[in-house]
Amino acid sequence: MINVAVVGFGVVGSGVVELLDKNNRLFSKKLNQEIACKYILDIREFPGSIYADKFVKDFSVIENDPEINIVVETVGGATFAYEYTKRALRAGKHVVTSNKELVAKHAPELLALARENGVCYLFEASVGGGIPIINPMYHCLAANELNRIVGIMNGTTNYILTKMIKEGVSFDAALRQAQLLGYAEKDPSADIDGIDTGRKICILASLAFGKHIYPENVMTKGIRGISLDDIYEADRQGMVVKLLGCAEKKDDGFVEIFVSPCAIPREHPLANIEDVFNGITVTGDAIGDCTFYGRGAGKMPTASAVGADIIDCVKGTEKSSLFWVDADNSTFVRSFDKLNLEYFKNDIALLKE
Amino acid sequence: MINVAVVGFGVVGSGVVELLDKNNRLFSKKLNQEIACKYILDIREFPGSIYADKFVKDFSVIENDPEINIVVETVGGATFAYEYTKRALRAGKHVVTSNKELVAKHAPELLALARENGVCYLFEASVGGGIPIINPMYHCLAANELNRIVGIMNGTTNYILTKMIKEGVSFDAALRQAQLLGYAEKDPSADIDGIDTGRKICILASLAFGKHIYPENVMTKGIRGISLDDIYEADRQGMVVKLLGCAEKKDDGFVEIFVSPCAIPREHPLANIEDVFNGITVTGDAIGDCTFYGRGAGKMPTASAVGADIIDCVKGTEKSSLFWVDADNSTFVRSFDKLNLEYFKNDIALLKE
Repeated sequence: MINVAVVGFGVVGSGVVELLDKNNRLFSKKLNQEIACKYILDIREFPGSIYADKFVKDFSVIENDPEINIVVETVGGATFAYEYTKRALRAGKHVVTSNKELVAKHAPELLALARENGVCYLFEASVGGGIPIINPMYHCLAANELNRIVGIMNGTTNYILTKMIKEGVSFDAALRQAQLLGYAEKDPSADIDGIDTGRKICILASLAFGKHIYPENVMTKGIRGISLDDIYEADRQGMVVKLLGCAEKKDDGFVEIFVSPCAIPREHPLANIEDVFNGITVTGDAIGDCTFYGRGAGKMPTASAVGADIIDCVKGTEKSSLFWVDADNSTFVRSFDKLNLEYFKNDIALLKE
Repeated sequence: MINVAVVGFGVVGSGVVELLDKNNRLFSKKLNQEIACKYILDIREFPGSIYADKFVKDFSVIENDPEINIVVETVGGATFAYEYTKRALRAGKHVVTSNKELVAKHAPELLALARENGVCYLFEASVGGGIPIINPMYHCLAANELNRIVGIMNGTTNYILTKMIKEGVSFDAALRQAQLLGYAEKDPSADIDGIDTGRKICILASLAFGKHIYPENVMTKGIRGISLDDIYEADRQGMVVKLLGCAEKKDDGFVEIFVSPCAIPREHPLANIEDVFNGITVTGDAIGDCTFYGRGAGKMPTASAVGADIIDCVKGTEKSSLFWVDADNSTFVRSFDKLNLEYFKNDIALLKE
């Protein structure tokens, strides 16, 4: 019997609880044993919830229960989540998360802690929502030297840009629509200033290149400055504007990494990825380009990725552990002033093939 | 030390030998031990080859060498390959293959034999060439009930259709060009009559739905009958014609499966997949649609998929084993006369969303 504790009952956390319930027979079949959510930790009250009997407020209940095998951390942020994750790993519990901020900030420490305690720290859901990208890149492309990762990794900004491109709506109006639909937060800066994309490209680049790249070393430009004029000019030249996260390993061993609105040709596989969808192209020396495309956010898609990690934790502790080392970014990440990006217009980089 | 024997030194086999050589340091790092190709089996002579010292002609050399851990079968077909695969598995060696014909015909038996002998039988390269699809579908979408698989799985026919659509070239002329470029064989029937696509959709559907689906139970139509008139008519209606393999699980538990040229809307993620590229969309109950896109054939892309399977064999025998059961197809595969496909034109099915 596998017992799961879900920490944080927001969009993703509640999706995970529902998925474990709805597809329970499927999980049990894949695991050859029963699985259930035993605890849900949240500071808020959910009086009418059908899961009311599972709620706890004190993390030590989870930490000290030897029956709990897996902690799903969907709190977000890098304060409580950081603390809970360390405590769970030290208590010998696997941790599965969708928390890109925590992974981007502290993965080397948390991965090492997981190793020491013989458990997994897995985070497929932290990049690309439901799209399988971390596992396919790390395992299925394992025979490749990876050279480059380019992707649309933020649904909110892609929704805004799609509105501007398809309907000629201004940036401000498109942002308001995104907020009305719940795609953008009241304070949308983490999305529209590219911070979220920055965390995600850091996670993928760290995995691909084996050393941790910290978000503060990534040149990050968002889409606040993009006008309809820019969009129209790109269109006239057969291009579309997308907010991309890019990381490329250069011949001298340095990684060039940035987040920027980019002009890309209409034929590019990422050009047709619209609305809140995400798409990520990975380039390896044997496979060439390979693109993964799907729902980059949302309750059930993200729960799908968490669910796969839960199964992986149970099926093969040692095997599924990801790993990379901490690093002094100044020695292998190319800084802003040395990037020499080519620009389509002032704030829009040109994606070179 | 891991020793590999590559059986068949054609396009894929020679790619695997080269990749093991070129990225040897990468393989060793992932495996925490050395790896090398010890034998190459081929009935032909390769006198000038830099691998000349590795060639053998008698499979029993490989079978009886206890140092050989993994046999890579790239012979193709279901005669010699079938025999060699069974002998290798019985001798306790992992088998990795790109041979879709053999997998589509005999997977249940070969998977069971692998289990009995505590080894893996893996075939990521049998569908979608280098694109990771089997592992992501089977492992990364493991928390989903899979409902549907739709894909462009044959590069040759996609090249021909792309030529017809983009350049207004007739079917016969496009086929001749494909033959000149080496994309199509002298006898192109396995590709253009949809047989190859049929094998691939059978493999994916068997994985997804847990029971083996035999190619002879799949209604299979190729692209011989497609004229430029059909292409133009589709274009006028905002659609493109693609050769698709489709499998869908219906509410009554039956699987509807077919291969057919299909008219799909220009906005569909598969509509923009051109030339020899492949793309496969998998639908799950949690993730929704998820598309994998890349090089569906070719020496190094296919070797990339074989390479990932080689690493998987070494890292976790039990964990990476795929499995499904043999089945009487009449009890769960919907036959042709009950499919009720909607047709765009006589020979072109309509892909419904």
